Amino acid sequence: MEAIGEHFFTVQPFEVDFRGRLTFPLLINNLLNAAGHHSNDRGFGIKQLNENKKTWVLSRIAIELTRHPINAEKVKVQTWIEGLLRSFTLRNFTIIGEDNKIIGYARTIWAMIDSESRKPINLTGMGLEQYVTAKDCPIDKAGKIVDPATGTTETFRVKYSDVDINQHLNSAKYVEHIIDAFTLHKFSKREIKRFEIEYIEECMFGETITLQKTELSKTEFIIILKKEDGSIACKSRLLFTEQTFNDKYITD
Amino acid sequence: MEAIGEHFFTVQPFEVDFRGRLTFPLLINNLLNAAGHHSNDRGFGIKQLNENKKTWVLSRIAIELTRHPINAEKVKVQTWIEGLLRSFTLRNFTIIGEDNKIIGYARTIWAMIDSESRKPINLTGMGLEQYVTAKDCPIDKAGKIVDPATGTTETFRVKYSDVDINQHLNSAKYVEHIIDAFTLHKFSKREIKRFEIEYIEECMFGETITLQKTELSKTEFIIILKKEDGSIACKSRLLFTEQTFNDKYITD
Repeated sequence: MEAIGEHFFTVQPFEVDFRGRLTFPLLINNLLNAAGHHSNDRGFGIKQLNENKKTWVLSRIAIELTRHPINAEKVKVQTWIEGLLRSFTLRNFTIIGEDNKIIGYARTIWAMIDSESRKPINLTGMGLEQYVTAKDCPIDKAGKIVDPATGTTETFRVKYSDVDINQHLNSAKYVEHIIDAFTLHKFSKREIKRFEIEYIEECMFGETITLQKTELSKTEFIIILKKEDGSIACKSRLLFTEQTFNDKYITD
Repeated sequence: MEAIGEHFFTVQPFEVDFRGRLTFPLLINNLLNAAGHHSNDRGFGIKQLNENKKTWVLSRIAIELTRHPINAEKVKVQTWIEGLLRSFTLRNFTIIGEDNKIIGYARTIWAMIDSESRKPINLTGMGLEQYVTAKDCPIDKAGKIVDPATGTTETFRVKYSDVDINQHLNSAKYVEHIIDAFTLHKFSKREIKRFEIEYIEECMFGETITLQKTELSKTEFIIILKKEDGSIACKSRLLFTEQTFNDKYITD
């Protein structure tokens, strides 16, 4: 099977935001679904891993966009493994619009862990090497995010539709809570140019999470999610554009 | 074009709940997407209506299930217009699993309104009659729901990922907030057998909504959403089964 996977999704009517564009958390969702299909098709998906009491844990995402998918647009996602370390895989993505132009790139880092001990598993010699491939992904890697320990805070409780099969806050739902900390005004004046998230601890069903938002400038924000015991669940950095994208792309 | 539309969706890895089944709000989302495709394909979709300053407004949903779609399952949705009244269309659905068995039915009621005056439009003589068709939908119509004016309350704020292109709480997100009022324990012991919702007023971005949950019995709940001015935004009734479904259906 080829090292680079191609997966398609079509933006559905009830998936667009107030601007008529695919919501940012659902874009992340679609990338993670593409990663799931790519690994399942090659024999190292969550389902196959679970049978051996192992699982994948998403550690980081960095994504940059130059345009957002719009309602009814058929989007192509390419995904591949760029590198394999002892405890991590580096999985990249290209996002291609229906006009056949690249509209974004993403880099992710994943660890494989033992489902019971939660300890990392050595990834070398498992047959993943055959899928490691070089392909252009011209965006910076996710950098270190420092908790500014300032900013405004709000809380949310982890609910039924937030959790995955492990009863933990679903990876894409972290992103939804982070994006929901902004007003519509923000998204009518600026765009997310770059988004980074570093997943640190799992949030459990029923837990009350504190979201701390720090505005470093009009175009740079740090958002930190903290668990009830004060430990950090994830750190995120958002860079916005100075102006909205000039994207007049219409599919018909 | 045929009166009955067929639409397919495949349950994606990041769309399943802690039981590995498509979440209930996302099932509703898929029905509404099917309705959108059905009406667009026949020339009376939201997009075509918007060009004439008209739009569809969802008034009611009643849905009954005998099984939930599972991860990776390819589901078929049939939808058709059962009846046309002066101000409403009656749109029904059949939900068919990958095993080709019917796993649910739904009934919905829609009004067409003028986008500016928000007044209902007379639907007769617009060419919709040609699509009205008789087909079996053996579930009761949505009944009248009375506000019990008792129960526990909690609040939520309408955020970015809640709203549609009109900056109103998206129809499927009402359902998500209602379902999220229950614990995982509930869904590990019982199933939603029947769900009804009556949409009354729109909830705006930034608005704080009060959710009132009343337990009539272990298997019957009424949930009412209220706006900041105390008016009712929607009323919902949930009937749960006594036991979980005995659904051992696996796709492979």
